Amino acid sequence: MANLDKIMKPKSIAVVGASTKDHTIGSDIMKRLQEYNFNGKIYPINPKGGIIEGLQAYTSVLEVPGEIDLAIIVVNAKFVLDTIDQCHQKGITGLCVITAGFKETGAEGAELEKQLLSKVKEYGMRCVGPNCLGVVNTNPEIRMDGCFAESLPERGHIGFVSQSGALGGGILNILKDLNLGFAQFISIGNQADVNAETAIEYWENESDVEQILLYMESIQNPSNFRKLASRVTKKKPILALKAGRSAAGASAASSHTGSLAGADKAAAALLKQSGVIREFSLKNLFSTAKVFANCPIPKGDRVAIITNSGGPGIMATDAVCEYGMQMAKITDATKEKLRSFLPSAASVKNPIDMIASAPIEHYQQTLETVIADENVDMIMVIYLPFLGLKDIDVAKAVMEIKAKYPQKPVIGVFMTKSEFFSKLSDMNVNMPFFMYAEEAADGMNRLNQQRLWMSQPEGKIPCYDVDKSKVESIIRKSLSEGRDQLTTLESIDVLQAYGIRACKYGLATNEEEVATLGNSIGYPVVMKMTSKTTSHKTDVGGVRINIQSESQLRAEYRDLIAKLTEKGLIDGLEGVIIQEMVKGSREMVCGIATDPQYGPMMMFGLGGVFVEALKDVTFRIAPLTDLDAKDMIKSVKAYKLLQGARGTTPAQMDQIEETLLRLSQLVSDFKFIDELDINPLLISEKTGEGIAVDGRIKVRLAEAKSALNMDCASCCA
Amino acid sequence: MANLDKIMKPKSIAVVGASTKDHTIGSDIMKRLQEYNFNGKIYPINPKGGIIEGLQAYTSVLEVPGEIDLAIIVVNAKFVLDTIDQCHQKGITGLCVITAGFKETGAEGAELEKQLLSKVKEYGMRCVGPNCLGVVNTNPEIRMDGCFAESLPERGHIGFVSQSGALGGGILNILKDLNLGFAQFISIGNQADVNAETAIEYWENESDVEQILLYMESIQNPSNFRKLASRVTKKKPILALKAGRSAAGASAASSHTGSLAGADKAAAALLKQSGVIREFSLKNLFSTAKVFANCPIPKGDRVAIITNSGGPGIMATDAVCEYGMQMAKITDATKEKLRSFLPSAASVKNPIDMIASAPIEHYQQTLETVIADENVDMIMVIYLPFLGLKDIDVAKAVMEIKAKYPQKPVIGVFMTKSEFFSKLSDMNVNMPFFMYAEEAADGMNRLNQQRLWMSQPEGKIPCYDVDKSKVESIIRKSLSEGRDQLTTLESIDVLQAYGIRACKYGLATNEEEVATLGNSIGYPVVMKMTSKTTSHKTDVGGVRINIQSESQLRAEYRDLIAKLTEKGLIDGLEGVIIQEMVKGSREMVCGIATDPQYGPMMMFGLGGVFVEALKDVTFRIAPLTDLDAKDMIKSVKAYKLLQGARGTTPAQMDQIEETLLRLSQLVSDFKFIDELDINPLLISEKTGEGIAVDGRIKVRLAEAKSALNMDCASCCA
Repeated sequence: MANLDKIMKPKSIAVVGASTKDHTIGSDIMKRLQEYNFNGKIYPINPKGGIIEGLQAYTSVLEVPGEIDLAIIVVNAKFVLDTIDQCHQKGITGLCVITAGFKETGAEGAELEKQLLSKVKEYGMRCVGPNCLGVVNTNPEIRMDGCFAESLPERGHIGFVSQSGALGGGILNILKDLNLGFAQFISIGNQADVNAETAIEYWENESDVEQILLYMESIQNPSNFRKLASRVTKKKPILALKAGRSAAGASAASSHTGSLAGADKAAAALLKQSGVIREFSLKNLFSTAKVFANCPIPKGDRVAIITNSGGPGIMATDAVCEYGMQMAKITDATKEKLRSFLPSAASVKNPIDMIASAPIEHYQQTLETVIADENVDMIMVIYLPFLGLKDIDVAKAVMEIKAKYPQKPVIGVFMTKSEFFSKLSDMNVNMPFFMYAEEAADGMNRLNQQRLWMSQPEGKIPCYDVDKSKVESIIRKSLSEGRDQLTTLESIDVLQAYGIRACKYGLATNEEEVATLGNSIGYPVVMKMTSKTTSHKTDVGGVRINIQSESQLRAEYRDLIAKLTEKGLIDGLEGVIIQEMVKGSREMVCGIATDPQYGPMMMFGLGGVFVEALKDVTFRIAPLTDLDAKDMIKSVKAYKLLQGARGTTPAQMDQIEETLLRLSQLVSDFKFIDELDINPLLISEKTGEGIAVDGRIKVRLAEAKSALNMDCASCCA
Repeated sequence: MANLDKIMKPKSIAVVGASTKDHTIGSDIMKRLQEYNFNGKIYPINPKGGIIEGLQAYTSVLEVPGEIDLAIIVVNAKFVLDTIDQCHQKGITGLCVITAGFKETGAEGAELEKQLLSKVKEYGMRCVGPNCLGVVNTNPEIRMDGCFAESLPERGHIGFVSQSGALGGGILNILKDLNLGFAQFISIGNQADVNAETAIEYWENESDVEQILLYMESIQNPSNFRKLASRVTKKKPILALKAGRSAAGASAASSHTGSLAGADKAAAALLKQSGVIREFSLKNLFSTAKVFANCPIPKGDRVAIITNSGGPGIMATDAVCEYGMQMAKITDATKEKLRSFLPSAASVKNPIDMIASAPIEHYQQTLETVIADENVDMIMVIYLPFLGLKDIDVAKAVMEIKAKYPQKPVIGVFMTKSEFFSKLSDMNVNMPFFMYAEEAADGMNRLNQQRLWMSQPEGKIPCYDVDKSKVESIIRKSLSEGRDQLTTLESIDVLQAYGIRACKYGLATNEEEVATLGNSIGYPVVMKMTSKTTSHKTDVGGVRINIQSESQLRAEYRDLIAKLTEKGLIDGLEGVIIQEMVKGSREMVCGIATDPQYGPMMMFGLGGVFVEALKDVTFRIAPLTDLDAKDMIKSVKAYKLLQGARGTTPAQMDQIEETLLRLSQLVSDFKFIDELDINPLLISEKTGEGIAVDGRIKVRLAEAKSALNMDCASCCA
């Protein structure tokens, strides 16, 4: 388990590179630690000694009389390694290296960082940074602001990890406005040792951290991230802003942090599978954090809206519906109660419009009535200023009622002056307030997302009984011939060895064999060329369908041979596959692609000619759990087609799910599979099964060779 | 032309119902008019006379000695009609009826409103309201705050129309925070006379109004709105928030304002075709308004980003790319110049990262260098607070440079405390500032959208030479048989009469005719039943394709007759259509649907079994211009399929466009066509033509009958 106590909860801190010179980091860190009243000992370290910020400075950590938990290092990069040695001698195991000049500057810096990390490992230390803004813990028992940002941190219960130091600083500056505070903040910088995953693990059981926010430009170890995050998100929400989504953005990311930004599709899949709530702007990241900071997780998605004005009620309804939540059906008893005190012009249907004349008492009575309604899970309270009412009084009155009912989320929408929000930020609030209904609806949607995730059981990665050795021998053969691409025939054999339903077939290499095979499979059949050199068979006319008889089969075969000869493609031809012709109009696609950083990704969606134009496909990182597979199938639009639109046979969802899971097992067992396509996975009109009608498999040559010379003991363990 | 001068630029105002009683509308209006220093005469009218707010009150407008331009009426609803009579006697032609109790309250109120409107028309008056918040004109020559909102209005150049009075008031309250002001504001209330369209027309040539903002729950006269808005948007931006999008929201809308909220698809199409920028939240409505208030329309979509911090630069890049704009390619000359003063750690590639140490001079020099780059159309300047720099000083310095280059939009992203924005709101700014990069990118996207719209020529509605009388006689026949649904055969005849390419066909009613027809068209053919009672032919097995020979054709025919007899569907059968079989794998759909409020809407998209599951279709309000038709085809994902993906024949885009335009002409000529479906419009693999392979037409019976007894002189004029 990650233990960062020495860094995040130190009893004593040495600031190595402390300085008396204003506007230097060495001076600022000292000031911040003192201004924020660090609840422990501070030892400034400076070769010249003297007094720094009123404290006795030491020329080295070795001179310090007491124990030191954490060394915050701000000396020039060239002195950092020596400093670490001294820290080790002193018995320090917590480091926060603020100093820049490492990996982010090029090869030389990267080498220095490598040495830094090896010292950290050798000495059994943990290290935040280098090239970072520092660390913060606002817990009253710690009170550590070891960060050179402009503002002091606000107290709260967010754990925040930022890969961008500057951004972390900017955030510290604006949090107060948002009525939000950190419990702990870690600027991971170049994340040589401590990274987002370390923080997630460390915060898993830290009760002071109630939600975790991440700003990431890259994910260092995707599979470890997934393992940790999917566990921790069952206990507390993790919100992530992953930058570098666009190609241009990603290229800016790699020049910026020296880390490789993964493709966004893979990142999206990883975050989804981990239960992480992904936000696409800082604004939304903080709005959502504000909601989680002030709301319980609701029991359902039925929203009631209370308003004193019709227009905003309509806009709120639009937003709630567009997020796919439900407008709560207010019970008759509630309606009756509302009618007893609201004026006749008011509407007691949801949205509940108390009309413009609503006094504070109506806000209180209406909220108290609606919050008790069993059909209501969340409540939005809208206020527009009218003459005679003070916004802040309305807010206080609403919060008074809310305090009595802690179990249901209530969000305020106050379309009033920004002064109101400034006033709120100096108060203790028990519910979030926004200016606009859409922001509140967005927050409710996030609460609901977290509810769904937490109520979902954990997914399982099944292990099927498969013929691994057959696959191994097929691939060995291909490798022995120097091919990274399996033939169609080999590909289908691989699929069948893993229990994936493919259509009946056989290989024939001359007209007589073709005829015999066709007769034994039974007509109609399909004939497909299989070639070591041509992979897109359709483009060269190598696929003939709906062949009804032996004579037609013979004729098509002769025609194919003639065409290929004419095009000079005859040499690679291994023969033709004669396949049972599966009848069905629904062509799906499934397969595997490899992301350089995230590894194998599974794809599923609408196949055939539509794949590229419509892009109705979805991705997940392998290995898939049973829930991942279910979710993949449901998350494409073509799901409606699978359900059996317009009188077609409903597809066997379980069997398609299993196909995906078996593919996932295949690529887990043979990690060197680079690409795999089943296109189409035809939905049989007769049985509803998904049947692999065509397959393509490509491996990474060198990796495959090396892997197949090794034991396969670790496969599917 | 709409002339609202008497209402919006009055020289004298009578407040009918002025009161001395605090917190009444009659008192508030008087106060606001005086506090805001109305630049003309104010006459309080109250049956008791006396002094109101220091002014001599009159017992009736008839007692007022001078001329009155505008009467603001706040008396009880039952006195409104009499008041209007008196106004007429006095020669008043401008009314603003704030009084509620009209259409919004039910049938009785609706009747009262009808009487109000007929008086207004009879007397040649213009009337804002009833049931509204009032009117505002901030022009220094007018200075009219005839509105009972809490705050005084801010001066600016926005023309704002709000259908929700309360909302209008809320907006007046928060505008100052946003550094935005109105030129004129009209709360249209029940829009008995003056509505959004009146305001748009009135503001078309009003130079004080530089952009128009609309909050609408319904559009009163869609075709008039389209005509006006599509003209005015070529001169100044119109931004609209149309509420009541969701089914639940729309139902709230109709109970709220007594107006029927049109379906959102139709509203979306109408706004798009009118060049109106549609926003989905008040927040975005105002953000965009802020951008238009402070930015010129750019010359292109190439964005440069200047930042002092990497992370926000990446997020900005992501946002710019996700909006489909381009990251500007900075010229080498610019890069060289930047390198001459920026530190070596800075990045002079776009995003330009001046790094955290950037002083104010670097902001100025960098902006001045980049703004002069010919490859740059818009600039985002990002500032994160670092020690030693004051945000407001940076903003001032940037605005200083911006002032020298008025021709390019510059948007600031200052991730700093909200105090900064409060300070800005008290200053004159020449560029918009936001807290987050995504907001700035969104604004740039809107500028670019307006640029594209303004640079687009005006669309033309073509008029083709068609056989109208043939269509008329086909429909007459159907009507005479009491059918609102044309048979397939009739439908295809109608399409052909309008010059729409349908495949060759003929009708046969017995086996011999079937065979003869098949032989004359040539094989392969398709056989389809045509019936007066069964419209979904496929569902009952009524379509047989790829019939290769006369003998197969005869067999299929016999089978069909047997099946229909078995199912009891034989009675409606008119015969079978034998059609040429068009080969093609791409099935599109096009057609007409009727929206109860917006009238006929055209649809185009991916057809076949995919229509419902994938919903890759787009809508436009008829009649279509040539540009609308082009745009429809390009705006579906299946456009890629039409272009000829994976070796298919590219579709004849012009011919498909013409098909849509001819359909549009058809429904313009025969307005009683309720539904029309061409599904599929098959793309011929041979020629790339879109060929109507099947058609369904349904008319509104009563309307059709009445129309066809009339002259058709007005058709396609």
